[in-house]
Amino acid sequence: MFLLAAIFVGSVTAQAPPVALEKLQGKTILLFTPHPDDDTFCCAGTLAMLAKQNNNIQIFIYTNDDKGSYDPAMTSQRLAQIRSMEEENACKLIGIPAANIHWLQFHDGMLEYANTFDLVEQVTKVIRTYRPDVVMSIDPGSEYVRWHKTDHRMAANNTIDAVRAAEWHLYFPNQLLHDHLQPWHVPLEVYYYVTPQDANYWVDISSMIDLKLDAAMAHVSQFEPSIHKYRPDWDAQDLKREKADLLKEVIVKNGHVVEAFRISGGFNQQ
Amino acid sequence: MFLLAAIFVGSVTAQAPPVALEKLQGKTILLFTPHPDDDTFCCAGTLAMLAKQNNNIQIFIYTNDDKGSYDPAMTSQRLAQIRSMEEENACKLIGIPAANIHWLQFHDGMLEYANTFDLVEQVTKVIRTYRPDVVMSIDPGSEYVRWHKTDHRMAANNTIDAVRAAEWHLYFPNQLLHDHLQPWHVPLEVYYYVTPQDANYWVDISSMIDLKLDAAMAHVSQFEPSIHKYRPDWDAQDLKREKADLLKEVIVKNGHVVEAFRISGGFNQQ
Amino acid sequence: MFLLAAIFVGSVTAQAPPVALEKLQGKTILLFTPHPDDDTFCCAGTLAMLAKQNNNIQIFIYTNDDKGSYDPAMTSQRLAQIRSMEEENACKLIGIPAANIHWLQFHDGMLEYANTFDLVEQVTKVIRTYRPDVVMSIDPGSEYVRWHKTDHRMAANNTIDAVRAAEWHLYFPNQLLHDHLQPWHVPLEVYYYVTPQDANYWVDISSMIDLKLDAAMAHVSQFEPSIHKYRPDWDAQDLKREKADLLKEVIVKNGHVVEAFRISGGFNQQ
Amino acid sequence: MFLLAAIFVGSVTAQAPPVALEKLQGKTILLFTPHPDDDTFCCAGTLAMLAKQNNNIQIFIYTNDDKGSYDPAMTSQRLAQIRSMEEENACKLIGIPAANIHWLQFHDGMLEYANTFDLVEQVTKVIRTYRPDVVMSIDPGSEYVRWHKTDHRMAANNTIDAVRAAEWHLYFPNQLLHDHLQPWHVPLEVYYYVTPQDANYWVDISSMIDLKLDAAMAHVSQFEPSIHKYRPDWDAQDLKREKADLLKEVIVKNGHVVEAFRISGGFNQQ
Amino acid sequence: MFLLAAIFVGSVTAQAPPVALEKLQGKTILLFTPHPDDDTFCCAGTLAMLAKQNNNIQIFIYTNDDKGSYDPAMTSQRLAQIRSMEEENACKLIGIPAANIHWLQFHDGMLEYANTFDLVEQVTKVIRTYRPDVVMSIDPGSEYVRWHKTDHRMAANNTIDAVRAAEWHLYFPNQLLHDHLQPWHVPLEVYYYVTPQDANYWVDISSMIDLKLDAAMAHVSQFEPSIHKYRPDWDAQDLKREKADLLKEVIVKNGHVVEAFRISGGFNQQ
Amino acid sequence: MFLLAAIFVGSVTAQAPPVALEKLQGKTILLFTPHPDDDTFCCAGTLAMLAKQNNNIQIFIYTNDDKGSYDPAMTSQRLAQIRSMEEENACKLIGIPAANIHWLQFHDGMLEYANTFDLVEQVTKVIRTYRPDVVMSIDPGSEYVRWHKTDHRMAANNTIDAVRAAEWHLYFPNQLLHDHLQPWHVPLEVYYYVTPQDANYWVDISSMIDLKLDAAMAHVSQFEPSIHKYRPDWDAQDLKREKADLLKEVIVKNGHVVEAFRISGGFNQQ
Repeated sequence: MFLLAAIFVGSVTAQAPPVALEKLQGKTILLFTPHPDDDTFCCAGTLAMLAKQNNNIQIFIYTNDDKGSYDPAMTSQRLAQIRSMEEENACKLIGIPAANIHWLQFHDGMLEYANTFDLVEQVTKVIRTYRPDVVMSIDPGSEYVRWHKTDHRMAANNTIDAVRAAEWHLYFPNQLLHDHLQPWHVPLEVYYYVTPQDANYWVDISSMIDLKLDAAMAHVSQFEPSIHKYRPDWDAQDLKREKADLLKEVIVKNGHVVEAFRISGGFNQQ
Repeated sequence: MFLLAAIFVGSVTAQAPPVALEKLQGKTILLFTPHPDDDTFCCAGTLAMLAKQNNNIQIFIYTNDDKGSYDPAMTSQRLAQIRSMEEENACKLIGIPAANIHWLQFHDGMLEYANTFDLVEQVTKVIRTYRPDVVMSIDPGSEYVRWHKTDHRMAANNTIDAVRAAEWHLYFPNQLLHDHLQPWHVPLEVYYYVTPQDANYWVDISSMIDLKLDAAMAHVSQFEPSIHKYRPDWDAQDLKREKADLLKEVIVKNGHVVEAFRISGGFNQQ
Repeated sequence: MFLLAAIFVGSVTAQAPPVALEKLQGKTILLFTPHPDDDTFCCAGTLAMLAKQNNNIQIFIYTNDDKGSYDPAMTSQRLAQIRSMEEENACKLIGIPAANIHWLQFHDGMLEYANTFDLVEQVTKVIRTYRPDVVMSIDPGSEYVRWHKTDHRMAANNTIDAVRAAEWHLYFPNQLLHDHLQPWHVPLEVYYYVTPQDANYWVDISSMIDLKLDAAMAHVSQFEPSIHKYRPDWDAQDLKREKADLLKEVIVKNGHVVEAFRISGGFNQQ
Repeated sequence: MFLLAAIFVGSVTAQAPPVALEKLQGKTILLFTPHPDDDTFCCAGTLAMLAKQNNNIQIFIYTNDDKGSYDPAMTSQRLAQIRSMEEENACKLIGIPAANIHWLQFHDGMLEYANTFDLVEQVTKVIRTYRPDVVMSIDPGSEYVRWHKTDHRMAANNTIDAVRAAEWHLYFPNQLLHDHLQPWHVPLEVYYYVTPQDANYWVDISSMIDLKLDAAMAHVSQFEPSIHKYRPDWDAQDLKREKADLLKEVIVKNGHVVEAFRISGGFNQQ
Repeated sequence: MFLLAAIFVGSVTAQAPPVALEKLQGKTILLFTPHPDDDTFCCAGTLAMLAKQNNNIQIFIYTNDDKGSYDPAMTSQRLAQIRSMEEENACKLIGIPAANIHWLQFHDGMLEYANTFDLVEQVTKVIRTYRPDVVMSIDPGSEYVRWHKTDHRMAANNTIDAVRAAEWHLYFPNQLLHDHLQPWHVPLEVYYYVTPQDANYWVDISSMIDLKLDAAMAHVSQFEPSIHKYRPDWDAQDLKREKADLLKEVIVKNGHVVEAFRISGGFNQQ
Repeated sequence: MFLLAAIFVGSVTAQAPPVALEKLQGKTILLFTPHPDDDTFCCAGTLAMLAKQNNNIQIFIYTNDDKGSYDPAMTSQRLAQIRSMEEENACKLIGIPAANIHWLQFHDGMLEYANTFDLVEQVTKVIRTYRPDVVMSIDPGSEYVRWHKTDHRMAANNTIDAVRAAEWHLYFPNQLLHDHLQPWHVPLEVYYYVTPQDANYWVDISSMIDLKLDAAMAHVSQFEPSIHKYRPDWDAQDLKREKADLLKEVIVKNGHVVEAFRISGGFNQQ
């Protein structure tokens, strides 16, 4: 499988993205996320804009996030329920209905140990079923090895592997034979969790920042005090403090609050 | 296993290569490639020069490239036959006989799911059998995670693992006991598919550029229109157009058409 | 599992380390190393200082280093014994008793093929048992893919995976139930084998350089002539030559011989 | 998980089946088969009777049977298409519509190498979705090791593992949380491919023997001459000869042509 | 590795056991069980006799039995706690202290998916540490494939694999080098969960039958009504009914209530 | 893949073998054995007869038998050398030259953990290369689960899987494409290590019994005293005693010393 551009030019540079992501309308957009909050923290502003413009956004979540609580009384079954409910609440705020949330049902922190062949086959089937205009996913990029370990790394790699496989009918040919699913070339890939040097596209989310903060706050169990002793709601003081903390952390570019992405038009599929 | 240079200097910088690759004569050179075209697109010019100078070049191809066709009538068994024939044609053009082409018989896109222990053992045996002066392989380098996924990444990692294992008789000791294969230290490693910042050696292939284009064109099924509806030969117009496209993509250094490599003299074996 | 700092700032920059590593006293320090010499070559000076200041240093060695000899008469069982003895000698010189050396009992070069789930569970148990103030480990960083392959890469990744898992009671919950091991958050992570651009902390080991050279020399079988034909001791001439060679390779910063580290205060655990 | 009957009695004897299998009406029956012909050859008579009595029969086929042809021109993609079509034809004859045939999409002979955890999870989901009154499957019994190897053995074991897992909500709990699938206890298990000493139930298929022969003959590519040189239809002479051969092989009990089963009411679920 | 008796005689017949199991005194006995109740249901009477005679009985339990409840409010973390407590209660009744119960910490029903290499290594270490006179384990025999699937089969096979490995110093040689554990030949193997045709030894437990029933009843959550809606204690009526049911199921031989075993003196180690 | 005979008759009974094994001449016979002594102990008499009659006997040995010594000074590398030499000596005695002995190079006791897909592919290639008239292998039969664990079980299953795969060109099709190996149907399968109830063929080896004893004795390191303290030769007294012991264990049928087999003509290939 050849890599024409890279081979003869020898470069993997970030090119100017061919489209204005936030202006898309009426498109099918699949977002893959390792946990039910990565999407909110990285993309809620952009997703809110896209949802408003009648794009069909489908969220696929690799794991159920059932490990990350310091509450000694918490069990994994209960945490999974909480995290599922929180994701539904966060998505609702930015305009994505619960029916559009799909869980791949792995346990938190265990994606690393999944069978990668089965995982790629499963996501390939998703892509061939929805035939998306855009796939949004965590960036499998060069700087990420250090902290992309386990769920992040696996989710990142697996999604692009599936994007590539989906394009060729001879990958998992039984999906065509038995499920009548045609191959599908994903025209646009949008990566989040990018480093500053890899980002090549920034969406101004100034108009959505309050909504994004509310969506982030919907993940109550991820924050103090709920992460240490679970409570499903916010004390007003806690909420104010956490929102203020988050606001200090936003990415600002040219004076605007933005979300950063790396957009790619097919190269990674090779 | 210690890493002396790196430990005390703390550096992994590219050093000046100790030899002029393109001047080698009468050497044994093993080239490992994930697919039967990566070698052509990256190294055909250099290989043609090396073949001319009576080097014994042996090509080892990890996968049979049996997935990459958009032709709905294509099957994997047939595509593998086509790709095999095309590789023989391309190699013949640059002076490498069909008998020097060896297939490791994995399916395209499936190397990621191979058993890595068996794979390293197999390639270690190849190295101990041929006792090469040079191993050429795809670069397992730092910038490549993003696009080296699946076959590329696995081929890159596996080859250097085998280079390292081949050197010590206590790796796979049954190869010595039962096959009478002595350990072998590969003196020179030459990596292709390198990024501009990693390249430390460039071969001027000006005199071979026509031959390289012809060799590239021998992979008919990788190009339009054959990739969409298979035909074994070229329409003159198509051929002209594709050659022109390729020419736009060559790497030029100091006014010369070059192929870029990263040459390493043993460090990676640690 | 969210990554707050990274998400909103979008940066993975090296921050100033919060503590003076070499000034620690009375702390519990776990060092994880792929082989029984990586610790000596990278950290012996720093470890000697820490040992002197009554820190409880426990060394965990992933593999038994039973492959790296060119001596044709050597067997793996014998080499493992030699390497074990050499590590005890080296550690003794820098003030770490043999009882503090723990072997995870993998074979050299085979860590890549270990079951990663079991491996993380095992190291998580170690961390929850010792409840260390500091974990020292090989850096799983961005530039290391090329040469961290096999044992190095696996040791690097596995240790930080275990650091993260150790913190949450819902990872490997049977360790709490059956072993009565509480979760443990490692407050400080210190990485060795760092590239110059990743290093963010340097320990001046001028006062320990002789001791470090002696400790390095204790790994007799790793050097000429013993690596080619095993002998357990040094000829005076050989010893002098090897020490001189090592001295040429030390890292010097601001005129001082240093050991370089990347120190991290928790970010990697996400 | 206790095994009460077996523990205190110490016996695994075949007990009288609690129901008349062939008299069932309006039930949901899931049949699991390794290949798309095992069901026909073992159960076509019984299935025809059950279909006639308005039972909802759903066929789940583990593999696509894409290897078993001696025709040198045959490819796996093409054979899979043929086998799929033949299965539809055979099922149609005995009253099961194409929509009730489901393929698990493994390749022939490769089920042995599937990831068993994923496979059990997948079939557990099927069982919890359909909530069957009866599961029919290949017998994982004591005498079968010798010839149940690969697909047969794996299909046999996996199906009963899934029957057991389906019953308890704590197996694959995300299926309840995310898919809203309640656990399901399968009340009746019917095993085919049984040895004479294990059979405990026989269905008189005298009235269905012609239909069964026709259904068997629908698998054209499994017989001479088609298995050696594919043709999609029968020469009248060949058809007559093969039917006669099959008739010589039927199981006769008390003067009736029967299909033999081992029926179990839950014990195996332990 | 040769199988002398079997090879030349060609027989795998059950031989008369060389010792009176229930008369042993002052011995070290390791019992391996897949779940924390298999030991009680199969061996409680015999174990009670052995405990009384000052044998050192150590119980090793492969899984934590955290799946087998129909109570919809039950979670796996909580069920594991309950099952652990019940096992301690049952063992206490028959004279085995809680400190002698060891958990291998696998999840219920998941032993099938464990890494078998790691599992054998772990149990080999246990055997070399305790150097037992007797190993009691679930029978990996010929008739058991059907119902020994998953945890039972894996526990049965793994234990005898470890018994064999423990005997030879070249299996897992690092256990000798690093843990100073000498190899150990287990002189007597006693298998429970045997079929009538495989049993070759019966212990008369008449004097212990009340104690055994009490021990069985200690596993409250395994019985109605607790298995459907958890309660930690018994209603007097329920207790009476369940005891009566169990009594109907005991094995009787020559008018005595017995526990049945297959005793082997080393053959299986080959 | 259908099982005609079994399906309609429902029987797996041992049929009269179609040929006189010991009368074969000029045939190609592949024998697969888990360790380099199983073949001698089970088949040396028969092999000696077959070798004498100019059959081309090729021995394939799965493991190098490098664990089974009680000698504390023994290492695995050395034991493998000894076992290799002993196998050559034993084979020479019965007329099979060293060049006909092939090692698959697994370590003793580790075949269970091999990658089964790779293993079947490897043996399939062997079968397609030699195109044998007879395959001799360890019996994967019903009674053998108990003691066929690890190497024996894996060798037994793997060989018949490969026999089946070898027959169809669509299994491992790259062997045809790249190695030009045609599929091969093995006409006769002969199983050793059979139970009395499974044996269906007995070769009278009266004329070869002395030779067989000598061949057995060539495996010096498998017997006392060499197994406890290695010596390469026999003390006359020891030799006499061991031979006498072996003679007590031979299988006698109708007054003749025999070797027992189960012969199968293709059924197992289904």
